[in-house]
Amino acid sequence: MNTTMEKFYKEINPAGFGVAIKQKEVLFSEQSEFQKVEIIDTDSELGRILTLDDLMMTTEGDEFYYHEMISHIPMMHHANPKSVLVIGGGDGGTIREVLKHDTVEKVVLCEIDGMVIDACKKYLPTISCQLDNPKVEILVQDAIEYIKDKKNMFDIILIDSTDPMGPGEGLFTEEFYTNVKEALKEGGIMAAQSESPVVNKNEIKKMYSLLKRVFPICTAYTSAMPTYPGGYWAWAFCSETVKPLSYFDERRAANITKTCKIYNKEYHNARFALPNYLKELI
Amino acid sequence: MNTTMEKFYKEINPAGFGVAIKQKEVLFSEQSEFQKVEIIDTDSELGRILTLDDLMMTTEGDEFYYHEMISHIPMMHHANPKSVLVIGGGDGGTIREVLKHDTVEKVVLCEIDGMVIDACKKYLPTISCQLDNPKVEILVQDAIEYIKDKKNMFDIILIDSTDPMGPGEGLFTEEFYTNVKEALKEGGIMAAQSESPVVNKNEIKKMYSLLKRVFPICTAYTSAMPTYPGGYWAWAFCSETVKPLSYFDERRAANITKTCKIYNKEYHNARFALPNYLKELI
Repeated sequence: MNTTMEKFYKEINPAGFGVAIKQKEVLFSEQSEFQKVEIIDTDSELGRILTLDDLMMTTEGDEFYYHEMISHIPMMHHANPKSVLVIGGGDGGTIREVLKHDTVEKVVLCEIDGMVIDACKKYLPTISCQLDNPKVEILVQDAIEYIKDKKNMFDIILIDSTDPMGPGEGLFTEEFYTNVKEALKEGGIMAAQSESPVVNKNEIKKMYSLLKRVFPICTAYTSAMPTYPGGYWAWAFCSETVKPLSYFDERRAANITKTCKIYNKEYHNARFALPNYLKELI
Repeated sequence: MNTTMEKFYKEINPAGFGVAIKQKEVLFSEQSEFQKVEIIDTDSELGRILTLDDLMMTTEGDEFYYHEMISHIPMMHHANPKSVLVIGGGDGGTIREVLKHDTVEKVVLCEIDGMVIDACKKYLPTISCQLDNPKVEILVQDAIEYIKDKKNMFDIILIDSTDPMGPGEGLFTEEFYTNVKEALKEGGIMAAQSESPVVNKNEIKKMYSLLKRVFPICTAYTSAMPTYPGGYWAWAFCSETVKPLSYFDERRAANITKTCKIYNKEYHNARFALPNYLKELI
């Protein structure tokens, strides 16, 4: 089935396996100040993909598995989320989902790399489609600096970052998490992408041990994510006061479910049920 | 990262993407009467893998994601499962999990291809380890024929088959499902592997439409399965009388959870919460 003429985008994780995708052509490839940014068109149902330093960030075909989960799970725990901060997430997929919540008045996107935003606006329109929404303020800025003096400003903070190496490294520190906590309003919730339970066990252990020093309430939720390492992904759910499944916004959920490929109330409620090995890790 | 010296086992699904694994060496490769049977050692955390006709069936590293789900989800719905039939499943992983239920007196393994059993006994001992258990009766036989005259014999039937093409094709028919239903005792449950919600949408639609003609109660449950297409897998849960989550065996679950990498009560309860697109499909 794999003739010598076919070309594959291949990404092998440290556990020795990974994803291979039939590649069509590289549409964009540039080195930014921070990383190599590429948009690759594939000959697959995944469509176009965004990679940063040769790691898959998002694909047109399966991005909804990730973006519905990082946004709606924390946001449905808040009765009236008006102000939201998205850290990273330059592709715009998280912003698109956040704006489905009609309570939201303002979303700040703090993305360090303007080239990611520009490339996604041009090549991934189904993902970046809401970046020009008037409720969105885009800051091309290092979130580590941005967050330092922000107190009591956001109902929801979503950390849609790269991995804990490279430009994203400083987003996985106790100092940063402390600043995030102080930037949250009362009743606020932070969610953060937290790597693959299948292949990033050490990274998960380290990240949750830091998070638990900062947030009195901290747990993981998981869902399928086909093109990420192991096909299975975890996000951290952290708050000073809001426990998982302690609140669910029925009205917004009913409307938003109609627009989602995955998200619904039962699926929401099921997300915090974790495999034994992951419960032990965190 | 991918030098020309490295060799990869690559499996690309019809959606144009799939899994790539650093390959070490082929330990076994033979054509049986039914299919090509291979055991490949990999340079990855997956260890050794079994492939049939170049499709991945199981790996030492992630088999528990599949085997815990196909067995414990249906079996924990039965108060006293004594007799179990496993169709396919020649690697023995499903048998190993079924035998954790101390109520089980007899398990019949009906596997069409003796070469699969022999190769797994030799090369995959952590998976096949219970195939010689005295409670197990191994029949190297076509399950389509075997099931025809079996009435009211099994509490649980698990269809641990290959895909709906090749030797497994006849296991995806209304006639076969009808025979399975008649082979079940009162209160019996059938579970069957039912392909990837990510890349096998047509196969799922067809399979559940057949199943629903036969079983008054029929739904899907899902879980992560890293090396299968899309990293996300579905199983059918079918019965004449037993509804999903209508019974849970607390005593057996408590003991079995201690031996499992994934399975626990909360994880069990979360499995029937399906993504919107999958609910629509079935």
